[in-house]
Amino acid sequence: MDSSPFASLFEPLQIGPVTTRNRFYQTPHCNGMGNLRPDAHARMRGIKAEGGWGIVNTENCSVHPSSDLMPEVLQTLWDDGDIPVLARMVEAVHEHNSLAGVQLAYSTYYNGNRLTREIPLGPMSRPVSGYHPVQVRAMDKQDIRNLHDWWAAASRRALQAGFDIINVDSNFSTIAFQFLSPRNQRSDEYGGSLVNRTRLLKELIEVSRDATQGKCAISVRLIIDELCGPMGLQAKDEGIEAIGLLAELPDLWDLVVGTWADDSPSSRFASENDHERFMLGIKSVTTKPVVGVGRFTSPDTMASMLRRGVLDLIGAARPSIADPFLPNKIKEGRYEDIRECIGCNICVSSHFAMTNLRCTQNPTMGEEWRRGWHPEYIAPKQSESEILVVGAGPAGLECARALGQRGYQVTLAERTTQLGGRVTREGEQLPGLREWLRVRDWRITQLNKLPNVEIYMDSDLSIPDIVEFGAAHIVMATGSKWRADGVGRANDRPIPVDSSVQVLSPDDIMDGVPVKKGPVLVYDDDHYYMGSVIAEKLARQGFEVVIATPAAEISAFTANTLELARVVKHLDECGVALRTHSILARIEGGEAQLLHTYTGRAQQLTIASVVMVTSRIANDSLFYGLQNFMEQDAGSKILTVGRVGDCLAPAAIFQAVYTGHKYARDFEAAPETTVAKRERVGLENVRLV
Amino acid sequence: MDSSPFASLFEPLQIGPVTTRNRFYQTPHCNGMGNLRPDAHARMRGIKAEGGWGIVNTENCSVHPSSDLMPEVLQTLWDDGDIPVLARMVEAVHEHNSLAGVQLAYSTYYNGNRLTREIPLGPMSRPVSGYHPVQVRAMDKQDIRNLHDWWAAASRRALQAGFDIINVDSNFSTIAFQFLSPRNQRSDEYGGSLVNRTRLLKELIEVSRDATQGKCAISVRLIIDELCGPMGLQAKDEGIEAIGLLAELPDLWDLVVGTWADDSPSSRFASENDHERFMLGIKSVTTKPVVGVGRFTSPDTMASMLRRGVLDLIGAARPSIADPFLPNKIKEGRYEDIRECIGCNICVSSHFAMTNLRCTQNPTMGEEWRRGWHPEYIAPKQSESEILVVGAGPAGLECARALGQRGYQVTLAERTTQLGGRVTREGEQLPGLREWLRVRDWRITQLNKLPNVEIYMDSDLSIPDIVEFGAAHIVMATGSKWRADGVGRANDRPIPVDSSVQVLSPDDIMDGVPVKKGPVLVYDDDHYYMGSVIAEKLARQGFEVVIATPAAEISAFTANTLELARVVKHLDECGVALRTHSILARIEGGEAQLLHTYTGRAQQLTIASVVMVTSRIANDSLFYGLQNFMEQDAGSKILTVGRVGDCLAPAAIFQAVYTGHKYARDFEAAPETTVAKRERVGLENVRLV
Repeated sequence: MDSSPFASLFEPLQIGPVTTRNRFYQTPHCNGMGNLRPDAHARMRGIKAEGGWGIVNTENCSVHPSSDLMPEVLQTLWDDGDIPVLARMVEAVHEHNSLAGVQLAYSTYYNGNRLTREIPLGPMSRPVSGYHPVQVRAMDKQDIRNLHDWWAAASRRALQAGFDIINVDSNFSTIAFQFLSPRNQRSDEYGGSLVNRTRLLKELIEVSRDATQGKCAISVRLIIDELCGPMGLQAKDEGIEAIGLLAELPDLWDLVVGTWADDSPSSRFASENDHERFMLGIKSVTTKPVVGVGRFTSPDTMASMLRRGVLDLIGAARPSIADPFLPNKIKEGRYEDIRECIGCNICVSSHFAMTNLRCTQNPTMGEEWRRGWHPEYIAPKQSESEILVVGAGPAGLECARALGQRGYQVTLAERTTQLGGRVTREGEQLPGLREWLRVRDWRITQLNKLPNVEIYMDSDLSIPDIVEFGAAHIVMATGSKWRADGVGRANDRPIPVDSSVQVLSPDDIMDGVPVKKGPVLVYDDDHYYMGSVIAEKLARQGFEVVIATPAAEISAFTANTLELARVVKHLDECGVALRTHSILARIEGGEAQLLHTYTGRAQQLTIASVVMVTSRIANDSLFYGLQNFMEQDAGSKILTVGRVGDCLAPAAIFQAVYTGHKYARDFEAAPETTVAKRERVGLENVRLV
Repeated sequence: MDSSPFASLFEPLQIGPVTTRNRFYQTPHCNGMGNLRPDAHARMRGIKAEGGWGIVNTENCSVHPSSDLMPEVLQTLWDDGDIPVLARMVEAVHEHNSLAGVQLAYSTYYNGNRLTREIPLGPMSRPVSGYHPVQVRAMDKQDIRNLHDWWAAASRRALQAGFDIINVDSNFSTIAFQFLSPRNQRSDEYGGSLVNRTRLLKELIEVSRDATQGKCAISVRLIIDELCGPMGLQAKDEGIEAIGLLAELPDLWDLVVGTWADDSPSSRFASENDHERFMLGIKSVTTKPVVGVGRFTSPDTMASMLRRGVLDLIGAARPSIADPFLPNKIKEGRYEDIRECIGCNICVSSHFAMTNLRCTQNPTMGEEWRRGWHPEYIAPKQSESEILVVGAGPAGLECARALGQRGYQVTLAERTTQLGGRVTREGEQLPGLREWLRVRDWRITQLNKLPNVEIYMDSDLSIPDIVEFGAAHIVMATGSKWRADGVGRANDRPIPVDSSVQVLSPDDIMDGVPVKKGPVLVYDDDHYYMGSVIAEKLARQGFEVVIATPAAEISAFTANTLELARVVKHLDECGVALRTHSILARIEGGEAQLLHTYTGRAQQLTIASVVMVTSRIANDSLFYGLQNFMEQDAGSKILTVGRVGDCLAPAAIFQAVYTGHKYARDFEAAPETTVAKRERVGLENVRLV
């Protein structure tokens, strides 16, 4: 271990009254399980500890009903009834000798207190974010005294639940930060000078310290730059100065940049370690350990951050989701086994969907308790069955890999001459998606280690070929193709298009079909990334591009991956014209007719070509053909025909990986083990029958 | 009773194997409690039964995990563990001799199955609604057989839970309707002719009938017109024909028009009984009872629907929320006590907020279990305390009324010469909001019955006046005023505006301040109704109006009240120009500079005046002044000073009524009774310590 180039990452570190066994710090992150699915949450956090994260934090944990973020799925410490929920997570983390931290938060300008109906409080009177028609009340002195009491009570409960670290949240939507920000324009001793504006944060640190009698470490999770110029806090100006003011008061500084969207940019817009410039200089104003993030997946980068004295602990949320065993893999020198985060941010979308965390790279995420899935272990094979997987896109690769991991004899047949299917096509042909190739690359690396998996490329199998091959079990992973007829969400019948314009699909663009000279309309009724990356690609090729969508936003779904504002800005910079609220009704004589989604008002657009980005059709003819064959030929050796990925139903890549993995898990498993468990709300005074 | 003009509403009616005691049918409706807050849900439904609704239905109840609508809060009958949740509601309904119905649903084209991750199924392959990147798989024969099995199992569980009626949901997003709609373009025996397209609905009715062994009535909740012309089902064409095809198969027809937004229009866009034209003729094709809706609150209208043979049962969701005791009040001849629905649709927003149902008229809605509030009963007074309520807007009126109902001696002092505050101003001065005056009118009617409440108008009280008045308890209900400086969500500091244009607030418009000739910019950073009604008012006065908003939608919050599309269409028809994604940066030399929310790209707009619809300031100087006075004069007779409504924190009207009501409930109540109860998820294998 000591001779490892990464030994520094495994040195213990004292944090106030506690000591972490290594430098891997799972930062607080939302997960869509929270206190609504407490067993699922505890199990997920426990697996992080098992995988080597020395410190494992909760997500946002509200201290009082007047900081009610429901329906978002998070944690609460409002009363003693919340203690067992979090104690369960603490136990799961302690079981693996890691430290458990709780992110204590009091939110402002954000929460409508929609369930509790309490009046939201904040430094200034202002409407809450989002559009809930409720305003925040500017806190008076009594409100601040109450907050101290609530904070103390929650801190005591955190201690009772067993937490080692209390993280005083001074993140974007929380009270301590909103007092600290220059947006605070109060005229009392909590506003004006930086000393005044840090007063509440200082008080909350002290309250937590007192309430936990020095038994817990107290960390601060702080935004050091709002990334909005002088309207907000700036690192070089007051950000580092604020840390200097409170330098030795907390036991740890956990640093954040800007809003969530700023702090967790997708790989389309930022690469590993993009926060470093904000972290420089912080260690000169405090002797306390500093943790920062940067979607770190490279052990070299991590070690360098420590060596150069930028950080003391490696913070990570997304990399710990993609690979809960990342620290252990580094420790064991299994670098190529690290399942690196691809930065797609589909994990973040789970929070907005208020359902269990999902991950493109790690199909077991969110399923640890529900389905009993573990990211590293899988039940061994139940028989000597042989399986033929047809298609080596993300679903086929994962299905073959996981079946191979179980020990089955697997053959993976790919029609083309390269592996990865749509991941390869999209990652290589479209701008901004290169990191997504990690989905393919990790799986190929793993498959290459499995002697029981054989891969055949350039194998375009027909039904007779498959029958002749002789495997008892066939899995179709044949993907999907984009429709070019415009059928999608807004149009459930094909859009009438005459021969005046060239009609293309995203597949045509990826296949390099030459686009007719002249203006191009990208009609996006898909709403995720495809429309925008095609628009960007064509604009960069010199085309005059308009992207039109029936939705109110360009690439509407990307709001859930924190990309929306960046996508729009980026398209604008590329010269793409943007049209929202536009349903494509027909194309005739070189004119596209767009109807306003609500008013029906028509606009004409002169175009030479249109790219229809609307929906896809599963390549399932082989699947149904084989089913037919089996019905007709009862004597066939084929016992089962399954399908995974886009062939089962077109969806985003995380779903393809998941369905491929699920097939492998469920294959020859006892039926009762394939049923997902549910968490339920208890009834009051249940009569036991 | 028999001599009552409304006796027909209280005649029993046989529905298959069961009999309802009267003609009041609480249609299925979402409520934000569902199986996530099962005790709250059961209590709310039970109170409906107590108030006289002869039939009380659940909301959407999914039959299988592949119809997973989470995070929406609804019901499920996926396994036997769901039975006790619904049995609790059934017991609460049966306790009052009403019938309990369950809305069995299998959703399609809508659900992303975000928690269960099952593949969504439907008649055709299509993306799901919303923007979740998942497609529906077109069902094959095996899928349809599976659906039959799931439907049967859920029907059996419904019987076990004690339901009297199984409502086969053929509503917009459900499978039976999507097979029935001409949008179904299948080529097998489930597509094509109307007979083929009704096949699945017919089968599901039969499956429920068989599974419940004839013990439950089977109703069908069906859309009879999609309101989108030949693209969808039309009543006059195939809608009534479809009912004719299945005429006698179900025991009851429960009819719906279009999407939820079509079926439940707000009072701004539709008045009572707006569905009647679609209901005509239905009773000529079936002998089974027919129920329809129309936001019925007038006993005359209801009786007329029965007398004229249009309907057999009066369906209602919103009127039953605004007044759970509506049937009993009609029965008892207490017509003026009916708390009529104002059609604001804030109730619907609770579903989208996934938190307990709220209602502008009925502040106890959603609080029946959580706070133990009953819509008709309230604890009697605890003392002879006298209370002065300052301000007779919605909060002051409700506070005085509820305190008066408790028996306290209350004085209500109003500064102006009319009651109702903002409700009166908005309802009388702005287009489309007249029905909201019911908030005021019901309260005045009730207050006039209370001899212990005195009302003084034209009473502009100063602090010495209040002190001199001599009441021990003062409640400030002094409302709020609109800011004119542009501070709101997008701008946290005043927007720079030179003297070149007239700057107005919504209050100025309601006060009739003359607007300068020339183009008007309505800058809407409030996002609810105010911006749009002011734009409409000015446009109707002949002004050239532009409404601009930082949001992606005009009146963004109205998506939650099902009004958004109508608002936009209506503004367009009024000639108002619409600009989304526009932040007002400054106004100089008659030019407004709007910056794109994401790109920052600037646009100039020549205007003569601007109406700033951004946020409000509480009128709380009297409150704080009185607090100061009390701190300085310990000998004052005043014991407490409270505040309610917009004075406490500006918000929508439902919140004002709620905070006014809450003050009255909590006044002199034992502290433990003022704490809201919570429903919690149980932990697996909880160790009993």
